[in-house]
Amino acid sequence: MKIGIDLLGIDKKEEIYNFVNNFNDENVKLVVYGLDEDLLKIYDNTNVFKELCTEEVYMEDDAARVHRRKKDSSMIRMLEDLKNDKLDVTISGGSTGAYMASSLFVVGRIPGIAKPGLATMLPTITNHKFLFTDLGANVETKSEDLLNYSKLGRIYIENMFNVANPKTVLLNIGHEDTKGNKLYKETFKLLKENIVGFEGNLEARNILNHTSDVVIADGFTGNMVLKTIEGTALTFGKLIKELFLKNILSKISALLVKNGIKSFKRKFDYSEYGGAVLIGLKKPVIKIHGSANEKAVYYAVEQAKQIYNNKVYEKMNELSEGE
Amino acid sequence: MKIGIDLLGIDKKEEIYNFVNNFNDENVKLVVYGLDEDLLKIYDNTNVFKELCTEEVYMEDDAARVHRRKKDSSMIRMLEDLKNDKLDVTISGGSTGAYMASSLFVVGRIPGIAKPGLATMLPTITNHKFLFTDLGANVETKSEDLLNYSKLGRIYIENMFNVANPKTVLLNIGHEDTKGNKLYKETFKLLKENIVGFEGNLEARNILNHTSDVVIADGFTGNMVLKTIEGTALTFGKLIKELFLKNILSKISALLVKNGIKSFKRKFDYSEYGGAVLIGLKKPVIKIHGSANEKAVYYAVEQAKQIYNNKVYEKMNELSEGE
Repeated sequence: MKIGIDLLGIDKKEEIYNFVNNFNDENVKLVVYGLDEDLLKIYDNTNVFKELCTEEVYMEDDAARVHRRKKDSSMIRMLEDLKNDKLDVTISGGSTGAYMASSLFVVGRIPGIAKPGLATMLPTITNHKFLFTDLGANVETKSEDLLNYSKLGRIYIENMFNVANPKTVLLNIGHEDTKGNKLYKETFKLLKENIVGFEGNLEARNILNHTSDVVIADGFTGNMVLKTIEGTALTFGKLIKELFLKNILSKISALLVKNGIKSFKRKFDYSEYGGAVLIGLKKPVIKIHGSANEKAVYYAVEQAKQIYNNKVYEKMNELSEGE
Repeated sequence: MKIGIDLLGIDKKEEIYNFVNNFNDENVKLVVYGLDEDLLKIYDNTNVFKELCTEEVYMEDDAARVHRRKKDSSMIRMLEDLKNDKLDVTISGGSTGAYMASSLFVVGRIPGIAKPGLATMLPTITNHKFLFTDLGANVETKSEDLLNYSKLGRIYIENMFNVANPKTVLLNIGHEDTKGNKLYKETFKLLKENIVGFEGNLEARNILNHTSDVVIADGFTGNMVLKTIEGTALTFGKLIKELFLKNILSKISALLVKNGIKSFKRKFDYSEYGGAVLIGLKKPVIKIHGSANEKAVYYAVEQAKQIYNNKVYEKMNELSEGE
């Protein structure tokens, strides 16, 4: 299989260079896209192919126009190669908006899916993980979109993690069946009628404390909730750090719970969860965080292999056959 | 002044009984509403008046019909007395939905405010506090509603905390001016044109790390975000507790940072922040949490006194004069 990697877009390019230079999996070929200066940093390797690009996509670029205005950028060249079957999966840490819009234009949607959604795995307080979608690909959402994300999310979970009957819930302002605004009330009915394993509403208070496999929200709310989790976690992390660094006694205290803190950090270390995927696209594109480190790139590549080997997107594409 | 207190609705009634029985502020008269069994627990006190009721509002009651179906409940009797100028402020820990709907029907809105919003003070990582609204009173929101919450929120902050020029922001999926869905883009323009001190969008990631005074969101999103903060904070609190209780060394560690943990807990102790208020109503009703303790009731009463003494609702009512 061939995985495309965008060398541009992430904050610390060395992390991605190091990953590529340390890469050795004979079953996988990496195709790396970058400027001249990036490709100079990549060692020669029979499993790594270099594609020289002359343009870079920036955060400020108009996301909807990048695919026409920056045709020789690493992001667009890579997506064109995905479209033309030269790649099986792509990975980028560049502008989320540009990557989403461009992959929609270049790679295209599964017929019948009006708008793709962005999905990621998240941890709960136990060792349970779940798929959360939409994270903000679609901020003007219809109930049919949310029904589609539920179907696509189920396929992802079933095939990536071999979960026989994924439990699906709708994130909402309360767990009672009648909760929510018009969109959520409509969606509740649609999911109840169409999704096997739909278990009703999940109150946002339990977002990190539940046993469901797929959690559905509209893109605007999903993005707000994801960012609120991140913000609250960061705030608490900062306060705990301050607590331990306060004085000699607190520093000794930190040493005593060192292992506990490590396992705590690992539990909420997003880099082990792979990147976010656009569901509803014909082919798999993975978005990693701009602050991704070597480990995060490693897990995104593992995710890409699993998506390919388990034919996850082939199964998603079968959804259109019923149309 | 006279403050109405609903003895029903909170989980631990002893907390509210104790507060009333320990109450001594000669400038304030408390009027307590409850069933016979509740009033028996309240000591005679020249500053405490007892109102005997025969009905109780339950969580399961149809919120929109409580004011007609349970006219002799503590909640409705208290709201009727507020309407008829027998009270200045009311406090209840009962069903939020029933309390909001009933106060809307019984007390009424300020002319020109289509739908009241629910607002509460929240802490940030520094010692800064801010007003967050709407927390879910209005889940089908128009941009005009959000403009009204901004106006009302400013009046609240100015008059409660003597802040000369409150900084107002719109909670959004990014800080850039063009972010958001249709509702948020429209609201951004309205706030920019009409709200002095509007400082643009606040990304949800910074919800606990900013210096703004009023943070505006639609009720559906605001409720989701508030519950996500609570859920994430609870999850982290639980994990930290587990970390310290793990073994002898970690327990010693906990002792060494005992004071730090206390100040950490105090920072995020909602009970010191008073209750939530409905803004857009003609008269002030305060909602306390169902799990409120004696301290939380104390702070809600302090809040009620401040609202009354600073004529906060009189100033909110002046908004309608421009109509």
